[in-house]
Amino acid sequence: MKSHRKVLTLHIPGRTGFVNITEEVAAAVRASGVQEGLCLVNSMHITSSVFINDEESGLKQDYLRWLERLAPFNPGSDPAQGGYLHNRSGEDNGDAHHKRQIMGREVVVAITGGHLDFGTWEQIFYGEFDGRRDKRILIKIIGE
Amino acid sequence: MKSHRKVLTLHIPGRTGFVNITEEVAAAVRASGVQEGLCLVNSMHITSSVFINDEESGLKQDYLRWLERLAPFNPGSDPAQGGYLHNRSGEDNGDAHHKRQIMGREVVVAITGGHLDFGTWEQIFYGEFDGRRDKRILIKIIGE
Amino acid sequence: MKSHRKVLTLHIPGRTGFVNITEEVAAAVRASGVQEGLCLVNSMHITSSVFINDEESGLKQDYLRWLERLAPFNPGSDPAQGGYLHNRSGEDNGDAHHKRQIMGREVVVAITGGHLDFGTWEQIFYGEFDGRRDKRILIKIIGE
Repeated sequence: MKSHRKVLTLHIPGRTGFVNITEEVAAAVRASGVQEGLCLVNSMHITSSVFINDEESGLKQDYLRWLERLAPFNPGSDPAQGGYLHNRSGEDNGDAHHKRQIMGREVVVAITGGHLDFGTWEQIFYGEFDGRRDKRILIKIIGE
Repeated sequence: MKSHRKVLTLHIPGRTGFVNITEEVAAAVRASGVQEGLCLVNSMHITSSVFINDEESGLKQDYLRWLERLAPFNPGSDPAQGGYLHNRSGEDNGDAHHKRQIMGREVVVAITGGHLDFGTWEQIFYGEFDGRRDKRILIKIIGE
Repeated sequence: MKSHRKVLTLHIPGRTGFVNITEEVAAAVRASGVQEGLCLVNSMHITSSVFINDEESGLKQDYLRWLERLAPFNPGSDPAQGGYLHNRSGEDNGDAHHKRQIMGREVVVAITGGHLDFGTWEQIFYGEFDGRRDKRILIKIIGE
């Protein structure tokens, strides 16, 4: 069995944003030499996501608006005012911990014939909900 | 290490629906000859899900009603009217991309003693949110 | 290829609650002897979750309040009154099947150098939404 590990580092200048990392993951698969196996891609942080969806700019705006509706940003810590108890810890990112749960932490992708085994429109994204600092994404590949 | 790949093709006649694919996945595990390993099952599309829950007809209706509340169908593209910017691309399935994120893209299931290592009530479902055309599900098995 | 299987049993005295299981998973990784591989951790039940987020007490309360808003507990079975059709089956846990979909069934974690390959704040939690009975969590490890 072969294994391969690669860490990507990203820095989103704003609080939120999406970055298509499909090519970086495909490069890691090529570097691994694995022909048949599984590729795990996960955020190493708890206020961001790795997910698979469509490379379409309108959809990314839709997602951000929707997540804001499901878990609104609020720097306060009083739930009666829409705040998050988490923010009593000195953070203002309570909302980001919730948005990340909707979009997910990780994806697992099949490797077949040395390539990501994807449907036509599948693309891998990093989704940031508390940016403005370096964040890391882990790629771990196992197979033969 | 052994690996095995199988693609299922489904066609849901309506816009939404759930199909229990547990037996098809179990058959792929048997065909693989893998005794100990992992089985990835994922939608190859970005408007549908693979998830694990209960085979119970009321629950499936509950899920559809709930998802419609969290991400309502709207063929329009004006967010002020409940539409999705994604629909400016000529699609009317903006809602389906959101429903899929709630229900997830994939499941990873343990294989133990040559079988899906499941709790009593675990069943694997394909969840369609933009049907009326052929869709594919990927099963990828690795192990020994 | 090595494989290792471990089942944890938990009993949450109330309907809902979160339990940090990171140390139990780390112990299973050590027991497996796997240096490079993948570790699957999943609930074997369909009204509970395994997820990765922050060990912070305010956040756990935020999550429960938020999930209650997205999928309120209601023992009834009339959707017009906020009930769940699933409850016609004699259950009162329709809400729990929905909460579990938001928080997810499973996590897959990389194993590198014999350890869980985690970012600084990543911790593994079991999330219960229909407790008061024994529940099982499956840990399955493969690698070398």
